Amino acid sequence: MDINLSAEDIKEAYKHIEDVVVKTPLLYSPVFSNLYDNQIYMKCENLQITGAYKLRGALNKIRELSIEQKYHGVVCASAGNHAQGVAYASSLEKTNAIIVMPKTTPYLKVQSTRDFGGKVILHGDCYDDAYQEAKRIEEEEGATFIHPFDDIEIIKGQGTVGLEILNQLPDADIIICPIGGGGLISGVASYAKSVNPNIKIIGVQAEGANAMKRSFDSKKHTTLDSVNTIAEGIAVKRPGELTFAITKKLADEIITVKDNMIVDSLVMLCEKHKLLAEASGAASLAALKKLEITNKKIVCILSGGNIDMLTLTSLLNNGLVSRGRLFCFSVELPNSPGQLNKVSQILSKLGANVVRLEHNQSKAHNRFINVQLEITVETNGFEHIQQIKQTFEENNYFVTLHY
Amino acid sequence: MDINLSAEDIKEAYKHIEDVVVKTPLLYSPVFSNLYDNQIYMKCENLQITGAYKLRGALNKIRELSIEQKYHGVVCASAGNHAQGVAYASSLEKTNAIIVMPKTTPYLKVQSTRDFGGKVILHGDCYDDAYQEAKRIEEEEGATFIHPFDDIEIIKGQGTVGLEILNQLPDADIIICPIGGGGLISGVASYAKSVNPNIKIIGVQAEGANAMKRSFDSKKHTTLDSVNTIAEGIAVKRPGELTFAITKKLADEIITVKDNMIVDSLVMLCEKHKLLAEASGAASLAALKKLEITNKKIVCILSGGNIDMLTLTSLLNNGLVSRGRLFCFSVELPNSPGQLNKVSQILSKLGANVVRLEHNQSKAHNRFINVQLEITVETNGFEHIQQIKQTFEENNYFVTLHY
Repeated sequence: MDINLSAEDIKEAYKHIEDVVVKTPLLYSPVFSNLYDNQIYMKCENLQITGAYKLRGALNKIRELSIEQKYHGVVCASAGNHAQGVAYASSLEKTNAIIVMPKTTPYLKVQSTRDFGGKVILHGDCYDDAYQEAKRIEEEEGATFIHPFDDIEIIKGQGTVGLEILNQLPDADIIICPIGGGGLISGVASYAKSVNPNIKIIGVQAEGANAMKRSFDSKKHTTLDSVNTIAEGIAVKRPGELTFAITKKLADEIITVKDNMIVDSLVMLCEKHKLLAEASGAASLAALKKLEITNKKIVCILSGGNIDMLTLTSLLNNGLVSRGRLFCFSVELPNSPGQLNKVSQILSKLGANVVRLEHNQSKAHNRFINVQLEITVETNGFEHIQQIKQTFEENNYFVTLHY
Repeated sequence: MDINLSAEDIKEAYKHIEDVVVKTPLLYSPVFSNLYDNQIYMKCENLQITGAYKLRGALNKIRELSIEQKYHGVVCASAGNHAQGVAYASSLEKTNAIIVMPKTTPYLKVQSTRDFGGKVILHGDCYDDAYQEAKRIEEEEGATFIHPFDDIEIIKGQGTVGLEILNQLPDADIIICPIGGGGLISGVASYAKSVNPNIKIIGVQAEGANAMKRSFDSKKHTTLDSVNTIAEGIAVKRPGELTFAITKKLADEIITVKDNMIVDSLVMLCEKHKLLAEASGAASLAALKKLEITNKKIVCILSGGNIDMLTLTSLLNNGLVSRGRLFCFSVELPNSPGQLNKVSQILSKLGANVVRLEHNQSKAHNRFINVQLEITVETNGFEHIQQIKQTFEENNYFVTLHY
């Protein structure tokens, strides 16, 4: 298959959607620039309406439909950002949208899709079940199926991210793009390479969901049996036909990143730049660690920000622990008055602010010392943690580290 | 006192600093617009370098110093955003900056001020002590004292926020501006009223730190004995001389907001817009609830984003609880096998995902039923919570709500 999308095609798509989509900011990051010896810019699609770039493709696709098609409505299967994009785009175009989601979809994603105007049907236990149901609705009810990535109008719409990037930073050297099904990178690469053949387009996938990476490296369209990553937004088993053909031709390289690298980037983005991203949205920042390049202008696409607040707080806590800012340990105490006081004195002297404390009887290793104190304190890094551990041990406490 | 700052003065300040400061995005908020029947825009100074608008004033001030002054360095007292602004501005201007912080300043703020290039001295137990020490250093070492707000060059620098706003949205009707000492509102109002005398400038303070509000309403410069608010960035006991004079003349109104309104806005900003703000940074959004205005273009200045990650996670959790998305309760159980299983079945059937569970012996009210189970579950709103409570009660469990 050979598909050529020109810059003109994507400019045309932009004319269709620019009245609605936010021209998202391209922010320079002094923090990541210093860390990786490049000039790092972030294209903030997490600040897009519906919280992700997916709106662009969905809106372009739906605006391309005929009046008759719009009359019969649209249908899609998705538990994520595509659902919200289709719902919002349809409500703007006054066409009915049926969004089929697996029954396991968190209530909040269901709710927010409804809030954007979509009619949600819960069906089956996984994406594939929902997909089958959506295809059934397409056939029986004549609604147009809106594919999340393998559709030329969707790809053109996502390509407008690349158009904005090169308007904002015409001399960008590299664009790093997360890849799930491949819609975003296909659109962005088509525009960027058509405007500047020397620009490098680097894709990034999670190690546990590397279908495009394998397909790209082997030049053979590959399907994974299963995917396993925290970045559910890019957890796709098989790239699209169109998107694989375009990516194979235009991408320069595909990098994979581990989930823990993604989480580190997500926490740093939050702390240093006051921006939230979902895991797949932070993958392009994680990829910076694996580049062997310096002094280039690199744009990382932060593709989306739809992270659940409970997940966020838990990731932030993990991030604090892994950077020595939270320390969870236990000490064992003789079961007698005054012991807690000794422990508090040590913590206070060392400036360790207590976050959580649990006093457990009969949990200690030593059966003659039957109280265990589980302590979480705020710390100033690993030296501080070492100092706390050492001080307790010098005072003859048995210390167990919990992380 | 009568001070007139013209738009020209602030344009000049902008020329001094625009090579460094980020022209922060002005984002339209569909969410807050729908909620408050106005067109709401957010001026994202939380995305400014150093995480707050304070850099603007500090840089303008320090760049105005003579070579001799720069040779002797600068000094300031601050435990917050001013410290980081002065540190970063000084390092750019290659002048030494001494930042006096109270000994109680969290280590991380100390560290981040050092990271921006400042020499930190820890002195005294509160801001006033640190201030005295900074003034001593000014006198004895000849360093120039950089006031956090009551200085005409600082005010001009902060005014560039207003300049950018009116470049980005020339027909803004209202700008809402958080007030601590009054530097930001003085600069913004000076520019905005000089360009468009019809624009409304509304200040917002925390109820527990309303010195400018009282001064403004009574037309008498007022000092508070103490301040009490979660928004430590605007917790100021006494407005400046210059800033009070300007605010008295140019502000249209000052609103106060409760801390819980601030936290609600902060959580909503995080969840709906993927943006972090510190409490004072979210105060302008909280003020929207108290406006009796519709169909206006309103710009809320998100003044800063420097919130500690531990504080953030705790506020997010509170926010989830207050919106029925987390539910913490306890039930009392007979102390016999199979009881936990019954409880799990109920929770599973009601789709309540367990976040935390604690099984406590001898904590129950009924001494014949001596196990208490403390449960935190993810919920889908208050109806869901009601349903869970009711189901347990129908099954003869004694339920205690924890929030």
